[in-house]
Amino acid sequence: MVHVRGRFIALEGGEGAGKSTQARLLAEWLEDQGMQVLLTREPGGTPGAEAIRGLLLDPPDQPGWTGKAEALLFAAARAEHVARAIRPAMEEGTWVVCDRFVASSRAYQGGAGGLGDEAILALHRFGSDGLMPDLTILLEASEARIAERLAQRDAGRSDAIGGRGANYHREVARHFRGIAQAEPGAFAILNADGTFEAVHAAIRALVEPLIAASPA
Amino acid sequence: MVHVRGRFIALEGGEGAGKSTQARLLAEWLEDQGMQVLLTREPGGTPGAEAIRGLLLDPPDQPGWTGKAEALLFAAARAEHVARAIRPAMEEGTWVVCDRFVASSRAYQGGAGGLGDEAILALHRFGSDGLMPDLTILLEASEARIAERLAQRDAGRSDAIGGRGANYHREVARHFRGIAQAEPGAFAILNADGTFEAVHAAIRALVEPLIAASPA
Repeated sequence: MVHVRGRFIALEGGEGAGKSTQARLLAEWLEDQGMQVLLTREPGGTPGAEAIRGLLLDPPDQPGWTGKAEALLFAAARAEHVARAIRPAMEEGTWVVCDRFVASSRAYQGGAGGLGDEAILALHRFGSDGLMPDLTILLEASEARIAERLAQRDAGRSDAIGGRGANYHREVARHFRGIAQAEPGAFAILNADGTFEAVHAAIRALVEPLIAASPA
Repeated sequence: MVHVRGRFIALEGGEGAGKSTQARLLAEWLEDQGMQVLLTREPGGTPGAEAIRGLLLDPPDQPGWTGKAEALLFAAARAEHVARAIRPAMEEGTWVVCDRFVASSRAYQGGAGGLGDEAILALHRFGSDGLMPDLTILLEASEARIAERLAQRDAGRSDAIGGRGANYHREVARHFRGIAQAEPGAFAILNADGTFEAVHAAIRALVEPLIAASPA
């Protein structure tokens, strides 16, 4: 039997870009194609990492975590998630679809938070041996479309990071685009203003070549 | 008015060496000498860092944190503690007495845990700008004395790190000594088998020169 490593696909983008919905639709479609799929998210994906998520999104004291503590907590959650869930899944041939991964840390803490891309990548090399997705799909939505989607959520869903001001989120979007443009082989940028079905179809078109390239 | 920076003293050592008791006695004595003192501990010392302590000592899943996640969580708690409590105290002239600091991460996660000293120091440079105590006092107790002290504690006090086997704790002790011997200007090694009063007197003798060296 040929050992087939599962592929790892991350969906990235700011708040309200439709990542969670698209991750679910992609996972369902991959299962329809006969793959074993792990649908997961960051921060989170294991009991320990989900506990860290709780601290990140609802900090125990005000005015919230320092930028460096925040970056270290994300790296800790990711180290746990990679070691206990993502790598074991890939090694047994399961495809991994993840709602956010290290590009989020690069855009939020490294870019908008000012810590710098190299510092975030260094934490990722230490914590997770620098594991990168086979493909990262960046969903870019217009500010109007994002506002519309966020308005459909419960007001109570805003958290310590999502609740930061518009300027912060504009900086996040700018850094996401810069990171994706600098690594065209690893990233794809998709306009996410269309319907869920249209965006899903575009994501399928990006993922199909990965299936074709997998050993049978 | 001359700006006087407070001094920072860390007490280190394995489980049952008497660090918490000695930290308290030292803080009380410094207050008797007219100092403002912050008595604090790691992991912990701020609400956020204490929440991380809870995750470290009682991990949400088994078999506990991976070594790298553990090191990142300690660095996150320390970043928060340094930025929100230790540096502000020192800048206003308060002395800081801390029960464990970065040498614990070096001996436990870096040494006994096998991550290496340089990796721990790199996390500390990132998270806390590499802040080092003015003096770190390593309390070394014999295995017999440690067993005696631990037996006096409630059985329920053993945690995810303290509860590791004797070989792990022997490795911790060996690395503590190696780190302290390599930096004789920054560390002092004290035999902690004596009475609390005798060890406290020895600590006072180490700290008095720091008081004398402080601008009046």
